[in-house]
Amino acid sequence: MSSNFSVTPWEVKGKVDYDKLIVQFGTQKITPELKERIKKITGDLHVMLRRDVFFSHRDLDLVLKDYEEGKGFFLYTGRAPSLGMHIGHLVPFIFTKWLQEKFKVNLYIEITDDEKFMRNPELTLEQTRQFAYDNILDIIAVGFDPDRTFIFQDTEYIRNMYPLATKIAKKLTFSEVKATFGLENSSNIGIIFYPALQIAPTMFEKKRCLIPAGIDQDPYWRLQRDIAESLGYYKAAQIHSKFLPPLTGPEGKMSSSIPESAIYLTDDPKTVERKIMKYAFSGGQPTVELHRKYGGNPEIDVSFQWLYMFFEEDDNKIKKIEEDYRSGKMLTGELKQILIDKLNKFLEEHRAKREEAKELVNTFKYEGKLAKEMWNKIHE
Amino acid sequence: MSSNFSVTPWEVKGKVDYDKLIVQFGTQKITPELKERIKKITGDLHVMLRRDVFFSHRDLDLVLKDYEEGKGFFLYTGRAPSLGMHIGHLVPFIFTKWLQEKFKVNLYIEITDDEKFMRNPELTLEQTRQFAYDNILDIIAVGFDPDRTFIFQDTEYIRNMYPLATKIAKKLTFSEVKATFGLENSSNIGIIFYPALQIAPTMFEKKRCLIPAGIDQDPYWRLQRDIAESLGYYKAAQIHSKFLPPLTGPEGKMSSSIPESAIYLTDDPKTVERKIMKYAFSGGQPTVELHRKYGGNPEIDVSFQWLYMFFEEDDNKIKKIEEDYRSGKMLTGELKQILIDKLNKFLEEHRAKREEAKELVNTFKYEGKLAKEMWNKIHE
Repeated sequence: MSSNFSVTPWEVKGKVDYDKLIVQFGTQKITPELKERIKKITGDLHVMLRRDVFFSHRDLDLVLKDYEEGKGFFLYTGRAPSLGMHIGHLVPFIFTKWLQEKFKVNLYIEITDDEKFMRNPELTLEQTRQFAYDNILDIIAVGFDPDRTFIFQDTEYIRNMYPLATKIAKKLTFSEVKATFGLENSSNIGIIFYPALQIAPTMFEKKRCLIPAGIDQDPYWRLQRDIAESLGYYKAAQIHSKFLPPLTGPEGKMSSSIPESAIYLTDDPKTVERKIMKYAFSGGQPTVELHRKYGGNPEIDVSFQWLYMFFEEDDNKIKKIEEDYRSGKMLTGELKQILIDKLNKFLEEHRAKREEAKELVNTFKYEGKLAKEMWNKIHE
Repeated sequence: MSSNFSVTPWEVKGKVDYDKLIVQFGTQKITPELKERIKKITGDLHVMLRRDVFFSHRDLDLVLKDYEEGKGFFLYTGRAPSLGMHIGHLVPFIFTKWLQEKFKVNLYIEITDDEKFMRNPELTLEQTRQFAYDNILDIIAVGFDPDRTFIFQDTEYIRNMYPLATKIAKKLTFSEVKATFGLENSSNIGIIFYPALQIAPTMFEKKRCLIPAGIDQDPYWRLQRDIAESLGYYKAAQIHSKFLPPLTGPEGKMSSSIPESAIYLTDDPKTVERKIMKYAFSGGQPTVELHRKYGGNPEIDVSFQWLYMFFEEDDNKIKKIEEDYRSGKMLTGELKQILIDKLNKFLEEHRAKREEAKELVNTFKYEGKLAKEMWNKIHE
């Protein structure tokens, strides 16, 4: 590829040109017409849809058609559990929550404690399961429907998935998964098998499955789309998001291995303030004088981007912020303060909901309406 | 290898030189001293041990030491379910039954319905599970202790094994299993993962595991021996059998894909008679006259070998048969008739026990003493 950016499921490098990426990946743009069609059903559009944070798709038009015709669809997303989630990790969950609320559909959330353990030499299974418990609290805090959501860990739900997984696995060769998942002959045999367990939930119902996720995950689902119909299921549909830029600059994506690139859900108000003030990459000018004269550049300013993509839902307010910043009326420090306040308010509420989530783990994993149904089902 | 035979887990070719094989594989011969040590515990020696059908081992001396010191050990064997078992398939089970009876130890029998399905393009999972039920009846008919035996199918018991299997899988690379299991880059990812599930039962208890099996299976267990101690378990010990020769001649081993090479457990008396008379490779002379003059060669005579290795347990009787056949006093037809009678008696009894086994499936799989314990255990 001759572009100066690259996007794979395991690395995002450079300033991503999302229009080019749609062409490279062969996905579809979410057009104004498609948004109108969604709005007809949902009444309004989520901020991440209005502002093209979710910008690309595969078969979203077919999902809507199925919905309109009464066939329905279901949602699927997941997480490789880690020591603490950051703001970027919440993007697909928050948007998925909105979809579930508006379409009243089932949602399956796979927690890949097995994958995380097998992929990381330094982690024990006990650790990734502790991460799983911890991340599940953050996920529940997003506010999913307890009757329509099933959160499951691979090491626990494997019995119910394994027969289906063997059928999927039988259709995927090492050569095929090797390239897609970035594996080597020196990769361990557990991580080689894992794609079958990632694909299995797309076949939990005989309806179309819609997966909201970062566009970097798209290659994984191409394998599913290659084999789904031969097993009597639908090709998984997807709705793709852009990457919330790392604090440190407009290139790449947030990384757990670079702590200053992200705001963690556990960061306290002081830490948030310090991180944003110190690290948030600014589109402003070097001095107040120059800034007043030439204005800031919101396109590369991470604080502005975070407000635009996530934290300032009011269209009039974000427009005003953009104009004031671009004109030089608003200084970088002021812009950052807006983000700090928004972030801390969001995190405070999130942490309260996270506390309440402790009482709900059992519901989402075992005892809720959908969860109970799922534990009684063997996927064949 | 310059030998004119070859033994791998997926093919046995030529007339096997078992002494050479011990050197090639790096296993130990079962010495007269070792047999004496077993006899001290068991009181007698099983015919397959007396006559060196079980002839080679790894760490059998350590197993006996553990037993003598009161630490104990456990037995593990298994089967990839197939459409109908033949006489050769019973060899390890019959010997295992004797070991269990004499040492009063737990036995785990893994039925790899997943592996069989994933390895064979033409089979469905529903078929391999039907085979599993069918083969389990034949296995139960051998007469294992229902309190000390747990028979389990991978697709059912996976939840209990999977956490342990992920730990095993993490230690095995594709390169390592590729050579051992005869895999390719075009192999499917399910069969690549399967070795982890084959190894898991060797770690069901924190005792030494003894595996009775054909010596061709030895390479599989070398992988286990490479990683077991790093996971806190013992290297699997093994006791290896020779191959009951195919009816068609003294080379190779019985094959389900060559029906005339084997006697099936479902073959009726007429079929047995016809197959032995027609196909059983003879060490006799071309005419009665020449046979009376030069005698037969029991070493290459399949009927004699089957009697020696399996069906004639009486040492005096087998000696007499050997002498009479070698001298020319006994004709090939007479020798074959002895085998036919023995075989039909064995099969008649087996089929009666197989009928009774239908009432015992639930016990061995779910409700027996050991089975119940195992279903309450998650192997970590």
